[in-house]
Amino acid sequence: MNPFSDQKAEQIIQLGERNLIQSIAEWLGSCSPPSPAGIGDDAAVINLAGTNLVVTIDSLVLDKHFNASTPPSLAGQKLLKRNISDLAAMGAQPSHAVLACLLPTSTSVEWLKGFYLGLREAAEAYSIALVGGDITSTFQDLAFTLTLFGSGAEKSLTRKTSKPGDTLWVTGTLGGSLLGKHLDFEPRLKEGLWLASQTGVTSAMDVSDGLATDLLNLCPDNCSIDVDTDSIPISDAAIERASTTNRNPIEHALEDGEDYELLFTLWPEVHPIEFLTEWKESFSTPLTCIGKINTHPPGGLVQVKYSGSFSHYKGQGYEHF
Amino acid sequence: MNPFSDQKAEQIIQLGERNLIQSIAEWLGSCSPPSPAGIGDDAAVINLAGTNLVVTIDSLVLDKHFNASTPPSLAGQKLLKRNISDLAAMGAQPSHAVLACLLPTSTSVEWLKGFYLGLREAAEAYSIALVGGDITSTFQDLAFTLTLFGSGAEKSLTRKTSKPGDTLWVTGTLGGSLLGKHLDFEPRLKEGLWLASQTGVTSAMDVSDGLATDLLNLCPDNCSIDVDTDSIPISDAAIERASTTNRNPIEHALEDGEDYELLFTLWPEVHPIEFLTEWKESFSTPLTCIGKINTHPPGGLVQVKYSGSFSHYKGQGYEHF
Repeated sequence: MNPFSDQKAEQIIQLGERNLIQSIAEWLGSCSPPSPAGIGDDAAVINLAGTNLVVTIDSLVLDKHFNASTPPSLAGQKLLKRNISDLAAMGAQPSHAVLACLLPTSTSVEWLKGFYLGLREAAEAYSIALVGGDITSTFQDLAFTLTLFGSGAEKSLTRKTSKPGDTLWVTGTLGGSLLGKHLDFEPRLKEGLWLASQTGVTSAMDVSDGLATDLLNLCPDNCSIDVDTDSIPISDAAIERASTTNRNPIEHALEDGEDYELLFTLWPEVHPIEFLTEWKESFSTPLTCIGKINTHPPGGLVQVKYSGSFSHYKGQGYEHF
Repeated sequence: MNPFSDQKAEQIIQLGERNLIQSIAEWLGSCSPPSPAGIGDDAAVINLAGTNLVVTIDSLVLDKHFNASTPPSLAGQKLLKRNISDLAAMGAQPSHAVLACLLPTSTSVEWLKGFYLGLREAAEAYSIALVGGDITSTFQDLAFTLTLFGSGAEKSLTRKTSKPGDTLWVTGTLGGSLLGKHLDFEPRLKEGLWLASQTGVTSAMDVSDGLATDLLNLCPDNCSIDVDTDSIPISDAAIERASTTNRNPIEHALEDGEDYELLFTLWPEVHPIEFLTEWKESFSTPLTCIGKINTHPPGGLVQVKYSGSFSHYKGQGYEHF
């Protein structure tokens, strides 16, 4: 059976990332436990011999996530930090990683060394041990797949677990990561660990596919999210990008991928000003309230309602696939 | 920096798999703990929150490990069973897996569904949950990377931990896996779990790179292995292969990869006949004593000494890379 099809309708590209993941969960059936013990969150939370283990897997492909002009050390750092961001979004503490290399035989030893030195730098910075790996040769694509393990919080941070009335928050500033942040960023690990220790945090995820898309992934079924577009923290890079793309900077903040910020919700009982004050005592990372969770007619699709000066926004975020 | 080099001397192919893995461990430095807590055994044994976690990672690439004529379900099964074989060699019980797909956008949905249904079949047979994944698009190569983890034995089975005088054993029959076994095999999981529960087992690994190569990987530093070539269990497939390659079947038993059998050593105090009797009470899998561990002049390289009617053998096993 040919693994490829020349009929567009039979190709995975037609399904799109979200539908493909849903199909995979269906194909796996009973072998695919419901999230967060299985597919569907930033990482899986599994109970192994009484321990709360949190696991994520992610790949990096040449000319998709980095290119020949990327210093190899930054590519290595990026791979590990993307995975750290996933564990941060669960409130988990990463500790061990395994790495598979998929390399054409003409891969340069010096380049690969640079990649590993970058990986090591990030691993040391976050106290992660690289405990195993695999090397396999490919025909053309150069890719790496990393699996990161760690210890879960007493109560892991999950998606889709907020309730109407909860407030919506995002760390940092958004958009324009292509100008540099996508390679050089600090995953919000300390922030994620802290959030998991707070009682009022009802859901969380990392913003990696663009805010507009990730809002849909965070929102519980039968809920909607109200977002005030005027409150979205726009990065300088988004403004810079917009000057060349002739788009509104807010579109970059909403749609550009790879922000690696945290998006989370808070019980309405938590007072926003008090929460912000506590936050600022621990972190210099900006934190902004950008909206709240709302009810939605039952049976309807999850929806984001935009208000403010960009309330006509109807766009979508970034699909990696 | 160009990830590729057109100078042969600068390419990873020149290093070879074994040297490359050694270089990687050096580049990672203190982030790479010594085996079995890190690189160097069939899987890594790590202590996470008081649990003995055993982890392995392995990839499957189109036209390397399967091809367009392979039923996709067998490709899916193969990927999981290769990883199970690694955990079996540690005496560990697999329980959870995460899978990264690296797919050209023209990948056929039907083919991918077949792959996942095969994966599910193997996952159900061995009670493994698929708890997470990632899908990334590539330009040409179609590949999968699976990370399998599970609970380690009280005392994990490791490589290079035998002593002179220990006897050497192998399960099943060897060679010719290309004729079918490489796709359709049963990892020796029950056998591995049982071996880990026996006090006399001093080391173990799975035979995946060909016996001749894997003997070198099992042998402790400053030891040699004496192998009686007449005792090596040759598979029917090795004999069939030899009839078309004009080689001696034993060369196929020694050099063909992907046997997925277990190779292990036993204290000399364990009586071979008694051990075999006990084995046969539990398993129908063939088990053969093929040699023993011997001393070797200090400072010399690990060595395999062949005796018997094929004692002139000087060859090597299979390098995946």
